[in-house]
Amino acid sequence: MTVNRQWLLAKRPDGMIGPDNFQYTETAVPTPGDQEVLIRNLYFSFDPTQRNWMVDRPSYLPPVGLGEVMRAGSIGQVVESRHSDFNEGDLVQTTGCWQDYVVLAPGEGPMGLNVLPPGVPPELMLSVLGITGITAYFGLLDVAKPIAGDTVLVSGAAGATGSVAAQIARIKGCRVVGIAGGREKCAWLTDTAKLDMALDYKAGDLDAQIGAACPEKWNVFFDNVGGSVLNTVMGQLQEGARLVLCGAISQYEADVEPVTHTWELITKRARMEGFMFSDYTDEFPAVIETLESQLRTGELKTFDQRYQGIEQTPIAFCDMMRGVSRGKCLVVLD
Amino acid sequence: MTVNRQWLLAKRPDGMIGPDNFQYTETAVPTPGDQEVLIRNLYFSFDPTQRNWMVDRPSYLPPVGLGEVMRAGSIGQVVESRHSDFNEGDLVQTTGCWQDYVVLAPGEGPMGLNVLPPGVPPELMLSVLGITGITAYFGLLDVAKPIAGDTVLVSGAAGATGSVAAQIARIKGCRVVGIAGGREKCAWLTDTAKLDMALDYKAGDLDAQIGAACPEKWNVFFDNVGGSVLNTVMGQLQEGARLVLCGAISQYEADVEPVTHTWELITKRARMEGFMFSDYTDEFPAVIETLESQLRTGELKTFDQRYQGIEQTPIAFCDMMRGVSRGKCLVVLD
Repeated sequence: MTVNRQWLLAKRPDGMIGPDNFQYTETAVPTPGDQEVLIRNLYFSFDPTQRNWMVDRPSYLPPVGLGEVMRAGSIGQVVESRHSDFNEGDLVQTTGCWQDYVVLAPGEGPMGLNVLPPGVPPELMLSVLGITGITAYFGLLDVAKPIAGDTVLVSGAAGATGSVAAQIARIKGCRVVGIAGGREKCAWLTDTAKLDMALDYKAGDLDAQIGAACPEKWNVFFDNVGGSVLNTVMGQLQEGARLVLCGAISQYEADVEPVTHTWELITKRARMEGFMFSDYTDEFPAVIETLESQLRTGELKTFDQRYQGIEQTPIAFCDMMRGVSRGKCLVVLD
Repeated sequence: MTVNRQWLLAKRPDGMIGPDNFQYTETAVPTPGDQEVLIRNLYFSFDPTQRNWMVDRPSYLPPVGLGEVMRAGSIGQVVESRHSDFNEGDLVQTTGCWQDYVVLAPGEGPMGLNVLPPGVPPELMLSVLGITGITAYFGLLDVAKPIAGDTVLVSGAAGATGSVAAQIARIKGCRVVGIAGGREKCAWLTDTAKLDMALDYKAGDLDAQIGAACPEKWNVFFDNVGGSVLNTVMGQLQEGARLVLCGAISQYEADVEPVTHTWELITKRARMEGFMFSDYTDEFPAVIETLESQLRTGELKTFDQRYQGIEQTPIAFCDMMRGVSRGKCLVVLD
């Protein structure tokens, strides 16, 4: 290939994003300098937090500039190396952005540049065995600290992170109730991921559904959704409940539907807490080994929604933001 | 006295409470049965949480029934004892309610029936050396775990609980910024309670005031107010911030002004947590000793707003709810 196909951030979002927030362009394939490598991207990872990077406000990462290539996690292959730690042909995980080629030096970018361990399917490194799975693992086990017998609610339960958190809770011996949008997702959660129950928020009256599913209310809530789902769930917390704030996808696209149930946090001695996967880097290898073994034994199930070809990139991202896709959303490049 | 003057809950509140929510009546002085004591109330304690007891909804205590004597913490004196643990003349702390006389057995009521330690001014047992001070102590030190150098914000800082929490943070070596309503309260906070700064939320633009007072944002927030103050403060939290939910006085009288800043809890790895003083009963004696010694040395300052006579009871309560009174609000009975 002699051109570098790219998707640029063309326009900042105002409410729901659409493909017109991005603009296709072609540029020259970049050339690596000293201590740099040229990577050809093979997979793009889609993560709700990318939606936040499109907005011009301070956050944990600077916003993507207008006219810049849209930032994204990726897996790629080294095609030219001018750094002794990398060889041509190495599979690497990095922040390759929405383009065919990227030039990077180790240490650059929010996720660094890491050679994949041998024998691991690359797409799993973007989901269960990557940041997605690690986020689910520490958010659930370290922040919420569930014990066997706890009732654990997970929102966005059919999503990449939620599905792992929900299954880890099930493996831990908890009673797990997933919240997802649509019958197909709910069926996957109970039939394949083996959750105790799945609630379809699109079927209406989530509050009543939670009441029926959790007559003794919940001990742990792992929230990926925020907004009205968060607030509805908060209305039914048990004494000593732990509420892990992992993501807030509903808030990224719309005005925040605010939380009114802070009073219950007081009277129920409950805790609501955010976290970042990056606080646990020392423990990544051990956790990845655990998750890998759970995948191997079939205790942990995974699902990828794949889109083929770079031209699908904006569509895939919008589908994920609207809950059209299920599990981990990926683009596989040609 | 041959009658028992009482204030009954006459009408459930709809928005702001007023004296007309209560009705004065006189009944016969009750007679203690076997294992009971007759207590003459000397002081009523006013606590924002009483406002919640007026509403017919499930909470940590059952609501006060319509036509029942309004529930309140109190200090009284035993005038007749039919229980071997109590003697005539004993000063006791209990839930005596808004009336001259109450008959109780030990173990009855949400606060039990406890003889005051000798030599302690009774009014301090309702404030710094009672549940108020204990709540401030554990909420600040055990839930928020401040360390020297932390910036600690306290809302309702001129109130009974807030003023103790703020001073404990100051003693701990924190930089303490109190939020209160009005210049007089703010002057007391800086001049007498020796906080680093006091912000008058009635002076407008609290967000800008916090920004100016805490250019590096805050590490700990001890919240007694809830609603819009809570949400405004949440917008300026630092990495790893701890937000203690102690009370939500602004929410008891009005529609909840909801929280929109849950996203910041995620990106800043922050924690928001409720608690109940009653989880720490084993540690009460040691903590009371600490607080008593800090009062003696003058490190800890206290202020009581006293109303004289049972007829003032509803007025005193409404004043406290509207932020008219400062420090601990009490009625001293004739």
